Amino acid sequence: MEIIKKIELMQEVSDKWRRGGNIISCVPTMGFLHQGHVELLSVGREKGDRLIMTIFVNPTQFGPHEDYQRYPQDTEGDLDKARSAGVDAVFMPTVEKMYPDGFQSTVTVDNITQYLCGKSRPRHFAGVTVVVAKLFNITKPHLAIFGEKDYQQLVVIKQMVRDLNMDIDIIGVPTVREKDGLAMSSRNNYLSPEERLSALSLKKGLDFAKKMVAEGERDSAKIKNAVRELILSHPFTEIDYITICDTEKLTDMENIDRPSLLALAVRVGKTRLIDNIIVRTN
Amino acid sequence: MEIIKKIELMQEVSDKWRRGGNIISCVPTMGFLHQGHVELLSVGREKGDRLIMTIFVNPTQFGPHEDYQRYPQDTEGDLDKARSAGVDAVFMPTVEKMYPDGFQSTVTVDNITQYLCGKSRPRHFAGVTVVVAKLFNITKPHLAIFGEKDYQQLVVIKQMVRDLNMDIDIIGVPTVREKDGLAMSSRNNYLSPEERLSALSLKKGLDFAKKMVAEGERDSAKIKNAVRELILSHPFTEIDYITICDTEKLTDMENIDRPSLLALAVRVGKTRLIDNIIVRTN
Repeated sequence: MEIIKKIELMQEVSDKWRRGGNIISCVPTMGFLHQGHVELLSVGREKGDRLIMTIFVNPTQFGPHEDYQRYPQDTEGDLDKARSAGVDAVFMPTVEKMYPDGFQSTVTVDNITQYLCGKSRPRHFAGVTVVVAKLFNITKPHLAIFGEKDYQQLVVIKQMVRDLNMDIDIIGVPTVREKDGLAMSSRNNYLSPEERLSALSLKKGLDFAKKMVAEGERDSAKIKNAVRELILSHPFTEIDYITICDTEKLTDMENIDRPSLLALAVRVGKTRLIDNIIVRTN
Repeated sequence: MEIIKKIELMQEVSDKWRRGGNIISCVPTMGFLHQGHVELLSVGREKGDRLIMTIFVNPTQFGPHEDYQRYPQDTEGDLDKARSAGVDAVFMPTVEKMYPDGFQSTVTVDNITQYLCGKSRPRHFAGVTVVVAKLFNITKPHLAIFGEKDYQQLVVIKQMVRDLNMDIDIIGVPTVREKDGLAMSSRNNYLSPEERLSALSLKKGLDFAKKMVAEGERDSAKIKNAVRELILSHPFTEIDYITICDTEKLTDMENIDRPSLLALAVRVGKTRLIDNIIVRTN
């Protein structure tokens, strides 16, 4: 497994692989890998001849009062997991190389970033799109793999790729959960044992909504209220948003008359967690 | 020479060329080719194994009261010139394919677009950067060639490429002029014979400034005033800007203590023309 820190070298390696007729998969990460990332790597390994993983905690996607400074890191553990997953190259640049003096470009997706997490994290997706555009230009993949836990991120990246004609297949992979249902996230690391229990309310809320829809409820407001009550019945919880929306445009849906995204963001203590499911009316 | 209208086909052709080890040059144009474009093609032909020219009059880089609707076109003439210049593929998409329903992404370079033409054409460079990013992702060149007549555009594209890690060499080619000095531009086509005479004042102004600097003048304000007077002594002229600035950051320079860009934009009748020179103090 190659460990590459220089942008130009990564581009050379990818060029060489492409000239050799290899299909390149890329899994962008912020490190501190968990089983969810391992699942992304496994999909990348299966679909590509060469598998690149990137590790970069991207400062521009964190707000001023968010957790950039304390974002968990475990480079040695990450490299071990990458080796086991059959990664061919890990690209891990420095912040200084990614954002040198005079850096002044932005890449934004304008409409669908207004909703959900975009409301409470106004500059977040602009940070995501610029760094993903950069990572794509550096790793030159044929396909790139992202988790569906960050559903809005996945939709935003797909839109950017479509709009800018990046010749890359974006593949979403279903959320991987702990045995008790908690969606895997590097940020789960922040939770105290008591908060960890309350964090289960996110998945319980999603399951409850799913059950309501299965039983015939179609009124989004009623479903969202029920989920809200369920979550707030757990200690330490504070709701950022609960949304039922179109799966692509992310616009609110008052009635569930087609498959829709139920997405939520909840603070548990100081930790902001997100989760989602696709609700089907079949 | 292949004439390609479909985005996916252009990407396939470029991929095939790259896998074959070919160096791809790209010359993006808005069509209505003149000798300046032919010069760009000649540089592209020399530096690459495969030469792609794009023709696309990009609506997003025109302001609401600008000349998008009447921008001159001559597709047959362009294709003849492209054939003569040894172009391998002309990519000429439709507006609908480039900006389909739901298009919502932007690419911007933030600082250096504030000056010069960015002041009077506030959305122009955002239009340029998004379409050039798209054309690069479609034609996948190793190098791309732009004219120095649009000096700010060249600097903006270089900055975008650097910031977003696009693995493309951007090459600037000196302005090609008519025998009497007028910088070649598709927009010269708009000029009446009388306006055509007044349009010579741009180059005369630049030459006069060059002479002042050669004779020892270093005060930008004095030079700009002299150029202004010279240009306004011609009928039909109205000055948009005359600037002396840093060649990369495009920030104003009060004193010419290093090589600097002297750039100007002048309306001659209803036609807005630009020109520039690099002023050296040697």
